[in-house]
Parts: sequence; C-alpha cells; structure tokens
Amino acid sequence: MDLLTPSLKNLLDLWLNEDIGRGDLTSITLNKSNASAHWVAKEKGIFCGGFIIKHLFERVDGSTDIDLLIKDGESFLPDQKILKLKGNASSLVAGERTALNIAMHLSGISTATAALVAELNGTDVQLADTRKTTPGLRILEKYAVRCGGGINHRLGLDDAAMLKENHLAWTKDISTAINSIRMSAPWTTKVIVEAETTEQAKEAVLAGADAILLDEFSPEELHKIVPQLRELAKKASSHNGSGQIILEASGVNPNYLKAYAATGIDLISSSMSITKSSWVDFSMRFDELH
Amino acid sequence: MDLLTPSLKNLLDLWLNEDIGRGDLTSITLNKSNASAHWVAKEKGIFCGGFIIKHLFERVDGSTDIDLLIKDGESFLPDQKILKLKGNASSLVAGERTALNIAMHLSGISTATAALVAELNGTDVQLADTRKTTPGLRILEKYAVRCGGGINHRLGLDDAAMLKENHLAWTKDISTAINSIRMSAPWTTKVIVEAETTEQAKEAVLAGADAILLDEFSPEELHKIVPQLRELAKKASSHNGSGQIILEASGVNPNYLKAYAATGIDLISSSMSITKSSWVDFSMRFDELH
Amino acid sequence: MDLLTPSLKNLLDLWLNEDIGRGDLTSITLNKSNASAHWVAKEKGIFCGGFIIKHLFERVDGSTDIDLLIKDGESFLPDQKILKLKGNASSLVAGERTALNIAMHLSGISTATAALVAELNGTDVQLADTRKTTPGLRILEKYAVRCGGGINHRLGLDDAAMLKENHLAWTKDISTAINSIRMSAPWTTKVIVEAETTEQAKEAVLAGADAILLDEFSPEELHKIVPQLRELAKKASSHNGSGQIILEASGVNPNYLKAYAATGIDLISSSMSITKSSWVDFSMRFDELH
Amino acid sequence: MDLLTPSLKNLLDLWLNEDIGRGDLTSITLNKSNASAHWVAKEKGIFCGGFIIKHLFERVDGSTDIDLLIKDGESFLPDQKILKLKGNASSLVAGERTALNIAMHLSGISTATAALVAELNGTDVQLADTRKTTPGLRILEKYAVRCGGGINHRLGLDDAAMLKENHLAWTKDISTAINSIRMSAPWTTKVIVEAETTEQAKEAVLAGADAILLDEFSPEELHKIVPQLRELAKKASSHNGSGQIILEASGVNPNYLKAYAATGIDLISSSMSITKSSWVDFSMRFDELH
Amino acid sequence: MDLLTPSLKNLLDLWLNEDIGRGDLTSITLNKSNASAHWVAKEKGIFCGGFIIKHLFERVDGSTDIDLLIKDGESFLPDQKILKLKGNASSLVAGERTALNIAMHLSGISTATAALVAELNGTDVQLADTRKTTPGLRILEKYAVRCGGGINHRLGLDDAAMLKENHLAWTKDISTAINSIRMSAPWTTKVIVEAETTEQAKEAVLAGADAILLDEFSPEELHKIVPQLRELAKKASSHNGSGQIILEASGVNPNYLKAYAATGIDLISSSMSITKSSWVDFSMRFDELH
Amino acid sequence: MDLLTPSLKNLLDLWLNEDIGRGDLTSITLNKSNASAHWVAKEKGIFCGGFIIKHLFERVDGSTDIDLLIKDGESFLPDQKILKLKGNASSLVAGERTALNIAMHLSGISTATAALVAELNGTDVQLADTRKTTPGLRILEKYAVRCGGGINHRLGLDDAAMLKENHLAWTKDISTAINSIRMSAPWTTKVIVEAETTEQAKEAVLAGADAILLDEFSPEELHKIVPQLRELAKKASSHNGSGQIILEASGVNPNYLKAYAATGIDLISSSMSITKSSWVDFSMRFDELH
Repeated sequence: MDLLTPSLKNLLDLWLNEDIGRGDLTSITLNKSNASAHWVAKEKGIFCGGFIIKHLFERVDGSTDIDLLIKDGESFLPDQKILKLKGNASSLVAGERTALNIAMHLSGISTATAALVAELNGTDVQLADTRKTTPGLRILEKYAVRCGGGINHRLGLDDAAMLKENHLAWTKDISTAINSIRMSAPWTTKVIVEAETTEQAKEAVLAGADAILLDEFSPEELHKIVPQLRELAKKASSHNGSGQIILEASGVNPNYLKAYAATGIDLISSSMSITKSSWVDFSMRFDELH
Repeated sequence: MDLLTPSLKNLLDLWLNEDIGRGDLTSITLNKSNASAHWVAKEKGIFCGGFIIKHLFERVDGSTDIDLLIKDGESFLPDQKILKLKGNASSLVAGERTALNIAMHLSGISTATAALVAELNGTDVQLADTRKTTPGLRILEKYAVRCGGGINHRLGLDDAAMLKENHLAWTKDISTAINSIRMSAPWTTKVIVEAETTEQAKEAVLAGADAILLDEFSPEELHKIVPQLRELAKKASSHNGSGQIILEASGVNPNYLKAYAATGIDLISSSMSITKSSWVDFSMRFDELH
Repeated sequence: MDLLTPSLKNLLDLWLNEDIGRGDLTSITLNKSNASAHWVAKEKGIFCGGFIIKHLFERVDGSTDIDLLIKDGESFLPDQKILKLKGNASSLVAGERTALNIAMHLSGISTATAALVAELNGTDVQLADTRKTTPGLRILEKYAVRCGGGINHRLGLDDAAMLKENHLAWTKDISTAINSIRMSAPWTTKVIVEAETTEQAKEAVLAGADAILLDEFSPEELHKIVPQLRELAKKASSHNGSGQIILEASGVNPNYLKAYAATGIDLISSSMSITKSSWVDFSMRFDELH
Repeated sequence: MDLLTPSLKNLLDLWLNEDIGRGDLTSITLNKSNASAHWVAKEKGIFCGGFIIKHLFERVDGSTDIDLLIKDGESFLPDQKILKLKGNASSLVAGERTALNIAMHLSGISTATAALVAELNGTDVQLADTRKTTPGLRILEKYAVRCGGGINHRLGLDDAAMLKENHLAWTKDISTAINSIRMSAPWTTKVIVEAETTEQAKEAVLAGADAILLDEFSPEELHKIVPQLRELAKKASSHNGSGQIILEASGVNPNYLKAYAATGIDLISSSMSITKSSWVDFSMRFDELH
Repeated sequence: MDLLTPSLKNLLDLWLNEDIGRGDLTSITLNKSNASAHWVAKEKGIFCGGFIIKHLFERVDGSTDIDLLIKDGESFLPDQKILKLKGNASSLVAGERTALNIAMHLSGISTATAALVAELNGTDVQLADTRKTTPGLRILEKYAVRCGGGINHRLGLDDAAMLKENHLAWTKDISTAINSIRMSAPWTTKVIVEAETTEQAKEAVLAGADAILLDEFSPEELHKIVPQLRELAKKASSHNGSGQIILEASGVNPNYLKAYAATGIDLISSSMSITKSSWVDFSMRFDELH
Repeated sequence: MDLLTPSLKNLLDLWLNEDIGRGDLTSITLNKSNASAHWVAKEKGIFCGGFIIKHLFERVDGSTDIDLLIKDGESFLPDQKILKLKGNASSLVAGERTALNIAMHLSGISTATAALVAELNGTDVQLADTRKTTPGLRILEKYAVRCGGGINHRLGLDDAAMLKENHLAWTKDISTAINSIRMSAPWTTKVIVEAETTEQAKEAVLAGADAILLDEFSPEELHKIVPQLRELAKKASSHNGSGQIILEASGVNPNYLKAYAATGIDLISSSMSITKSSWVDFSMRFDELH
C-alpha cells in the first residue's frame, strides 16, 4: 500500500467532510499558529495506517510535516511514540480525530489478527480474511489483516468466483455451474466452491474447482475428508482441474485453531479479526506553539 | 433517520462499488431467476439498520421487495427472522454481503450501547457517544447509539464548539477563548470546555461555558466538584452564562457507571459502544427460486 | 474561513467547469505568455472573498501568485487596488470571471450587512442572517454576513432545531414537540420556537425553549412582550430551561431597526443583506505581458 | 429547460446536502404524516423555476406530488397561488427552504429582466445577459433572463470567442487574433470583439469579426459609429466576413435604454438583471395533515 | 452484464453531460411531442450494447420505452432492425448520438473479435483480450470481446499478477518475485510471467508460475517449447505449482492464427479486436410524432 | 489544450481507477526503486496526447518527471523516441498502460486525419469531424482531429443548433424552426440545417440558416447545387441571413475527396478519422533502476 489512488483520495475527502462539515467552530482560537505534536500508544499492539494518516494530514494541509516513527506491521508498546507532526495548529486539529479514528481501528484489526496468527505458529496453515468488512473500508481492513500476519481472500465479487450455498441450490449440478463461470469470467479467475457436506466437497473436486471452502466442519471431520479430497483431485486431474486443490476451513471455533491446522488444510478463513476486534488506543499530544 | 439524502445515496454507491467492483463473476449461475430470502439472527441483540438495508437493496435493483419484520431499536432473539426479501436472484446476491455487513456492525453498536445504558437505569444520567467513530460511518454509528438508548454528542466540528486540552494550552485564558468563539460561531452554538483539573472546570464555569466535560475524574472527585460547579454557575449567571451548566463525565471506568451516575452529573460520554463492540451475527438464507 | 475543505474544493471545480466548459476558445491568443494584473474597486464597500479567490486561481493553475492587498471584512474606496496577480496569461483569464463574480457577490453582501449593522451601533442587539441563502453558496454567504459585522443563525437543518409555524400546527403542544427533539437530537442542540402570537411565545418559554423567534411583531408589541417573556423564563427555570431565554425579532421593517433594538430583544434576524443586496463592482486590469 | 441532465441532478444534490447536512433535527415532530401545502406570492413579478422546483422536491422524495399553477415566464400578482404540494410532511419541509430560495432568486431575475425589457418595447433591440452570473447557477440564471424576455449571450468560454481588452493588448493586431481563433475553434464559433474606441471597432469589422461589443459608448457616440460600422462591413465583405455585423452596446446607463435602442444597434447587454436584482417573496403554507 | 452498478451509472452520466452540456439548443423544435423510432443496421456484424443503451435512454428520461430486437452476441444483417424506441421526442434526441456511438463502437469490437475467433474454429485454443482498451471503457470493451466469442484476460492490475519485462529486469530471480507476490496478494491470485526467451519461460515454470505468456514467439518456436514447458511443469509439481501450466501466445501475426493454435498453446491474447476495429454503422430513424 | 480543467482531472482519475482498481498486485516487486524509461514509436504517424500523458503520470505521482521529445501535431518515424520518464518504478508502471492506451488511440486519430487532410491539399476545403466520438473522450478526440490538420464541428448539443432529418419531419416549415431556435438559443449560436434534397437546402437558405449540411450528395449534384445556393443566399440577405452561407458536405465517399473539394463547398465533415482509425503502436521501455 504505497500509492494514493484516486479512490483513496476520495475516501479521505469523504472522511474529512464528515468531521469538519461546514467548518471547525473552535479553530478560531488556534488561527495562524504553528504547532508540533506527537502520537503516543496507550496500550500495546501492531501498528497499521501510517500511509493513510500521512496522506490524510497532507490532504488537510499540504504544508504539514509527518514523521512516522514506526512502520505498518510493527509492534508497539504502551507509551511508545508512534509519529510526530508539525504544521499549522488548526490544520493539525482538523485532521486529528479522523486520523486517530482510522489508525486506532486498523491497528485494532492488525493486533487481533496477530493474536490469531500466533496460534498457527509452527504450522503451514495461513489465516485469511473474508468479505465481512466494514462498508467503505474493505481495502484498508484487508491491508490491516496483512499487517497482522494474515493473508487476504478475494477482494470483492469480481476477482474470484465463489459458489455458495444459494448458488448451488439454484444449479443443476456443480459441474455445470463451474463451467458457466469458466466461460464468462476472465481465464485468470479461480473458482471456489463452499461445501457444507462431504458429498458437496467431493462433487466440487470432481467438477474441477480450484479450491473448496469447507464450512463448519469440525477438526475431526476435516481430518477424515482432507486426504480423501486430495486423492480425488489427483484422480480427477486427467480430464479437468490441475490435480491440486486448495482446501480452506471456515466457520471455525477460534479456541481450537491448532487442531484445525493439524488436519492438512491449507487455509483457515475467519472474519473475527475484523468483526470481533477492538480499537487500540492512541492519543495525540500537542507539544508547543510557534 | 427516514430520509435518503444525497450523501447517503453516495455512501450506498461507494459501498456497492467496493464489493461488486467490475461485476459479480459468480452471478452468471443465477441469471434471470427470481428468489425469496430472509435474514435470521444467530444471537440476541438490538436491531439497527433497517432503513439503510432497505435503500441499499433498492439501489442495487429498484424492483426488489423488502419486508422489515423488526424496527430499528427493537430487540431480537436468536433464530428470530429479521426481514424478508423478494427479487431477482442476482440482485439479492449483489447486495447481500454489504447489507449484512452494515446491519451486523450497526446492530453490534446498538447492542453494546443498550448494555451500557442498562447500567444507568433508574438514574437521570444519560449515555452519550463521542467523535470516535469509524471514518465514513459517523451518522450511521451515531444513529445506532440512539437505537441502543444512548444520546448523541456533537456530530462534527461544526455543530458545537469544544475547547480541549490543546486549545486551552494555546489560549491566554478560557474567557478570551469562549468570547472569540461566541463572536464567530452561529449564536445557536453551545460552547463546551474539557477540563482536566478542578481549577480549569471552575474557570470555565465563570467564563460562561455552556457545558463542562470533566475528563478522567473519579466518582469521588466528581462528588466533590459537581455541587461546587453548579453553585458557581448560579453566581456567575448575573454577568455571563445562564446560571445553568451541563456537566459531563468522560474517560470513565465502565465497571462503575452507577457510581458516576450518582455524583450529580448530567451525562456520561463514552466511545466504548463503538470502539469496543463486536458485530452481531445475521445470516441471509435463500428460500426458493421462481 | 482559512481551511480549503474537500467540499470547498469541489465547489471551486464546479464553478470553473461551469465557465470554462470544454475549453476557452479565445485563449489561443494568449498562450505561453506571463502576465501581471490587479483588481480595482469601482465603488466603495466592505471586501469579502480573499480566501476563496486565492484558492480559485491556484486551482486553475498552481503556479499563479496572488497578493491580497486587503483583508476580508475591511472597507475599500473607489479606485482602491484589491489584489495583485501574476501568472500564465491564459490561466489568469480562465479564472478571471468566476473569481470576480464570487467576490463581487460576497462583497455586496458584506457591504449590505455593514449598512444594516451600522443602524444598530450603540445597542447590544446583533444582526443575524437566516437560511435564505443562494443555493450552493450558504457557507460563503454566511461568512460574508460575518465580514459585514453580522452574526450567523443556524447553518442548516442539522445544527439547531427550530419549530416553525407548520411544525406547531401539527403538534399537540409545544412542550411535547420540544421534548421529542431533545430526545433525538444531540444534547448540544438549541431548540428555538418561532412564535407568531404572544400566546405561542409564552407557551414556548414555559415549555423550555432555548430561544424564541418573534415573527412580525411591531416594536410596540415587542416592548410589551419582551419583559413578560424574560420574567416567565425565570419562573419556569425551576423545572425546565435555564431561566434565560434568547429573544429574536424577525420579519422586521428595515427602516426602524433602532426601534426594534430598543425593545430589549437580543437579536434581529433578517435575510435582507443577502436577498436585497447588489454586487459591488470590481474590475480586473492586466498590466503587462512577459 | 425541460430535461433533468446529470449535471442538474448533481446540482440539486449539492443544494440539498447544503441545507439538510447530517439530517433535519426538527423533523422528528413531523414523522409519518402526510401533508398538503401551497406557495403564495407576497408581491408581483415574473415566475421562474417551476421545472427545477418540481425535480428538487421529487429528488428529496419520489412520492411527492407537485402541481405548478403558473408557468415559467408568466406574471403573478400578490397573494396569487404559485403551486400546490402533497406528500410526506418531513419531505416537504426538507425541500422547502432550498426550493423557495432558488425560485425567489430566479423569479427576482426574471422580474428585473422584464422591467428592463419593457423599456425596449417597440424597438427591435434585444436585451442580453453577460457572464456575470452567480457561481454555480449560470444556466439557471440565464434561463431566468429568458423567462423575463431577455436573450442570452454566450454561455461560457467555450461556445463563442470574445476578444476583450486584455487579449487585444497582447496581440499584434486584431486580424491575427481573429485568424488564430478561426483556425483552432470549431467552425461554428462566432468571434466577437470588445471595442473601447472607434478605431478598435473599425479595425475589428475590417478583420472580419462576427460582432462588435461597443463598451461604454454614449448614445450619441453610437449614433455616429453604428452606420459607419455597417457600411464598413459591407465593403469588407468581399474578402472576409459576411457583410453583416452584429453590434452590441454594453456598459450602458439603465436610465437611457430607449436612447441606446434608437442608435441602430442590435443588442444591449447588461448584467444588471442579475447583479442588481432582489429576490421576490414567496411563502410556503401548509394546509393540513393527513 | 445485467446489473447497472453505481460506476456504470456514473459513466452514463459522464457521457450524457459530454454531449448535452448546458442543454440541447435544437430541442426547442421538438418540445412536448411523443415519437417512436427504430435503429437499423447499415452493414452486417455482431451486436453488443443492448444493456447499456437501454439504461442510457432510461437515464435521460425514465418514461422512455426500449424494445431490443436482438441480443448481445447475436449477428445482424444489413437493413436489420436492431431496436425500437418510444418516448418524448426531445428525450430520444438527447440520448441518440451517445447511444449510437457506444453501440457502434462496441459492436465493431464484437464483430472484429468474431472474425478472429472464426480462424480458431475447430481448435481448443481461445482468443483473449489484453489491457489495451480505450480509457474509460475497459469493462464494456471486454464485454464486447466476450460477445464476439473471445474470453477476457485480467481486468486490471488488481485481479491477477503479471511479471512483465520490466519487473523481471528489476528482480533478482523469477522465483523471488513470484514468492513476494504470493505473500502479499490474495491467495486467489494467479501469477503470470511474460517470457521473451525460452530460458525465461523455463525459469518461470520451475518457479511455480500459474501461466506463461510467450511473447512474440513464432509458431515454429512455440511448437518446440510448448511440450518442454508442460513436461517441466509436471516435474516441478512436487515442490511448487500444480503440475499444470497455462500457456498463452501474444504478439502474434493475425494471418497465421491457425498455425499458432496448432502448437499446443491454450490461449492467444491479442489487442487487435479493440485497437484495429472499426465502428459498425447503425442509424436511428424516427417513425412518427404523437 | 493547455489547461488541466477540473473535468479533465476527473477523467484522469476515472481512467486510473479503472486500471489500478484495488491496487497493483505486481508492484510489490518494484517498491522503493527509482527508474527511468522512454517511449518509442513502432510505426510512423502524427503524435497526439503529450499534454494528457504528462498530467496523467503526475496525477499518479507528483514526483514523476516527464520530458516530451515531440509536440502534439508533429510527425514521428518508426523507432523514434517520443518521451522520457523518470520516477518511482511502481508509479511509472501504475500509469504505463493507461497513458499508452490514450496516446496510441489519439495518435491513431491524428494520423488518420492527416491522411484524409492530405487529400485536400491545394484546395480551400477543410475537413471537419462530427459528434461520432467515443463516449467519454469527445474533447480529446476532437483535439486529435485538430492535431491531424482537421477542424472541429460543434462540440455538443449546446454550442450550435443543427436541424436534422427528424427535427424537420416534425416541423411545419424550416423557417418556423429556425426562428424558434433564434428566440431561445444564445444570439451567438449558428443554426445549421441538414438537407437531404435540393428543395430542403433551398428552403433552408431562404429561411436564413447560417450553414447547410448537404448529406450524401454526389460531387456531380454538389457541383450543380452549390452555386444555386450561394446565389440564393445573396438574394435572401435583404430580409434574413447575412448573404453568406457555409456549405458542408457529409456522407462522402473517402475515395473521391478531391472531387468533392472541387465543387465549391466550404467543408467536408466525416467521422472516419475517428470511427475507422487504428491505434498507432508505442512501447514503453524501462532503462534502469536507481
């Protein structure tokens, strides 16, 4: 995340308008002074949001200087300085709340992700996110998941195909559905099938799916089905598919991540690091006026 | 919240673009069918978001029918049906994830707010939110706080003035600062002073502030200072101010809300119902194709 | 007004697109030359718009230099130089008309406001604007009113509540209406009641309104009612309201402002400085090509 | 003006956001009631804005019914009903102020234009506007001029070319300037030259200008120069130009319009009906709740 | 393509504003009449654009009726009727040019694609597009390629990764580059390597690329390298990659498509059906006024 | 074309969002390096797009340096260097495809225009474009036509009036139609009549049209009608029109341009240089990393 695309610029503008509205009524007391300030962490965690904060303050006022003391994805301790700011006092105040809000939110996600990822240490299994993200913040929250050590699932409805419960219910058979997708989607598209039963999973493998999302299977069930599916994929490879299949567990119990990881799956996907995380607490402190 | 303003329309568009991107690659399997579906709660809570969900699905496809079975602010139980949908299958799927995401997020906030508000039952003290809101979702999250029984603090930098630590540090005296605001802000503007010490609080009352935000005072300290400030306000009323002062506690320990409430303050403001809440879990289930 | 918010940037873009359209057909005759220019006043008045002009020319072309010779709110005489410009000739011409239009319009409002405010010299009564503003220019026109010595009423429907004729007609009683607002609006919100009769005014005071807008009362009527309302406010203060009430006259005859001011009211609100003002005349003169 | 183009939709949205902001705090008292209302004129004038009002209320709420009782360009008397409205009470209130503001502003322009046009009755001379229009409202204000009986000058910098004082100062000779425009502008473009002296006017005619804007010439001067220019145009027609020339007076004294009209010019252009007009007064009255 | 997403709506608005600008000056002659019209093809081809035309006319005026007589992807003959329209005459004219322009452009692409695809009839090789698309029309032009029987390559920089000449020049080795992408991109991402030499192609296969784009190889060279690469992929499958590799030829000579197809490759990608196509000619004819 | 107007900025943003989407997945391999690159032509042609390329790369990343080696409208040979670039490697790659796409498209139009214009060398007849332009690219494609030596017809529906087949079919007579336009359009507007028969052409001249578009007349027919129309225009000039008439041929056979030019017409308008042109081929080559 190092390019301020036009969409990101628009997002920053939306946020600033939201807070500033028709103008900061209190800023009259600050006018024409320069100030320096810093951010300090009030608890420990993993930092995320440096790039976006930097551009946010610059978008409020191009003459503001921001010095990030920690990189996205690095850990911080309570009382650690996160960044330093210098600029027009009323510009610093105009960006303050919005910048803190996004950084506290994203760092909360990175911190929560890192805690889950730690459970998978020593295994080959990776933790992926889902499309359960806060409306308007998808690419930023997915970036925060990466900063916490997780990986990303598809970004939207348009960069991978996933046949879910409802698609399957409305389809003659999985094979027909996969074929119709392969004919209309870009050839670079992976096709994933969400399976709720062993039968669906097997049918999907035979139909040439690139990946199976095994939803709400227990570690015991996964233990049994995973080798069967891998074997089936090899057999099926002659006529369709690659012989390889990516197996992903979802709907998992967060208390038993290690047990899931031991079943031979490739990935665990979970929305928890976004939907169950809390903001970490940063504070902006002003040093002096010039 | 009953008017779909132009800004809300833009927000819905932003969310839909975020998820749909260049087009739903899986929808080819759904084309041209009609379907009905419903939402079901997987845990208990307070509902929020009916208005926005309704408009979201209609914005995807104007021919979609939505029947809300529960109103914003009402409680629901696990397995309770939340709403029913009827429409083009690919339109329902196109709106599904975004609609669930916003409703689960907002209902999480309403549910968390209701839990805090329950602590204040039987007192006259109200729970208010802060400007710590997720960027892009301020008015919706503040609405969720109201649905949970809380009240709103100022909506942005432009509908009330608040002198905070930094403003005060850069000002000769509180009285000068308040006067400069009163001269430039609309006459309808309330001026609030954030006080971290008893001295600041008293100076602010004498200077004619409309409200004092007492930050990180303990219940014991509040017990002592609240009557003093009210007395001071009455004395001060001859030359400036109304004789009345609104006293608000912030930075409170959530375990002792009742103790704070017993100190004579008017309000407790807390960001917790937003920054520490989890999403409640809803699921969209498809009934049948037509 | 010292921060170019995203909304203001969009407004400048809208204006420029409006005048430039698909491109200035005459600019071919100016290409690649640098020029300096200045603005001169053709009549006397109060200046307003320096901030917005500066950003407008910079938005056309970031390399343009603008030197404001007079501050917003200051008076100017016929033939006085207002500002100096230096830059690419075609950029200066591209911004010329739009910049002059907004400055002439806003300075017209400031000038008209100052004339009304002069009538109130020596009194404690202030002149406020209303929501009668040219669509698209609200915050700029309200800023122009301040530059002319007036103060602002609420900025929109969302920063103060006002019960007007129609709200009252549809409400059981004023007290119920005020209470329902107090329960749903931010606690920082002032509630104003527009009264057309003495009875309504009294009912509103008793119901705890923060301010009464006395519409189309004569100075004689105001003389009589003002002390009654202040007395009532004090009596009412034990159970609701602060004991203080802000009293505002609207629908006034501009020829008798002094008479209104002598009645004990706090404010006179009038749309006249916006709806009845004329543009002041500035001219942009080019000095030389380089 | 009968097509709601995308730009007009955006303009309506901008206006509504400006007034409604984060939501109408008073509308809680109106919720869920239907109402009917009408507009009444408080003075006489020429109406303008029916089209835009209609779409504005519909954009607030698609279920609102508007019945225009008078067409754009028609005159109205004091106390005359202008339109009737029926719809959700809070939707009517949400659009009320903005709709009144634009209609009062535009009708003020139409009314002022009609007064000037009346001076020219019985002559062949038409009254045209200029590019001195309120930023953001150009096409609407120019439409209001037409409703008042005036005609429009060019709409922006891109639909006709005009060589003004500064272009001329920077150009070797008028002929070169006109030729460079003719080579780069669409062939449909008319080229107008603003002349401040008789010499410039003659040079422009000889150079093949389509029209001459005679700036700040007295009626006496015009009397003398107009026939000379027409004669010159005929002579020049062999090699460039059509033999015909449009002659326009600007910078005129509004008290002597008839005298200008008698000089043989084709047009008088004046910004007065926009820059010196006052809003006409309409009032929206609510009839009843349903 | 059956969902009018917010981005598509914005695109339609942009196009309409571009043509209509400040308003159709000729429409005054059409006002208030209803008309019916139809489109007729003036040459043969493959149709594309029905969906977008339909929404374009509806966006101009919601009351317009459009009856598409041919589906996207179907062929048409000279003089064949394409669609019928009924509605307000000035609305039909307002949308006419823009609708024809997009349909003629897209149908030109479908037609050109179909001609290339016909060359590949009887082979298993598919024709894919590239990112060489007209700015602003990517998803529509890629849809036109599908309507002509081609398939799509990646849609943008964000739905598949492709290591091109320059990335490779700046990378230690292909394996490192692929790994760094696999760690930061969603796990659903395919990684493609553009190879200009046999050595690069082999290195890429061994490094676990999902696909190789063989750029400017002759049919003879492909004949030799394709089986080698497939063999290598199988060998490599034990440690990385799936054993399967997608092989794509680019920079091909359009005169020898069949020869390329006979080399064992999976895909031919070519920008020709977009960059070398001509518009097909449709005409809109008005039937009658009502 | 030397001013980056707000609309052009928005267009650049739209294009960049289209290609970059949620972020360049391959750019991870380029991060933090600086690079230089150049563009080289792979065939000969006329260049167009320097201005827009420059701003496109700067909009991606303000620190990029672009050095244009050739001006818009100049010819280039195969292997000629077009421009040089220096900047952050991932920024160069982010803008590469979009910049090439627009420049190759526009230069294709300039090149095709120049070939047609060459046919008219030695005559006084000019080649004009039409409103058949790619949606979203009108002003750029029209600029490309000028760079190729052509001239522009009207830019949209709002800068000139043209009575076409359908308008005429719905009109009592041409004279009435022209008069109604002259009364509602700006006085600067030229009125053109599209004539498909000699009778229509004559009626239009007598009715005072400024120009006649003679559609699908053969050179022989034009030879006969042109002098008749010019004669008629002179006769008609006493009561309406200028005596002069612009005569334009459209629907011409491109193989006989010289024959059309010899008929005495003023202009030939053709959409061919846009609708039948191919992109010219440029390649961006990276020099080195720093």
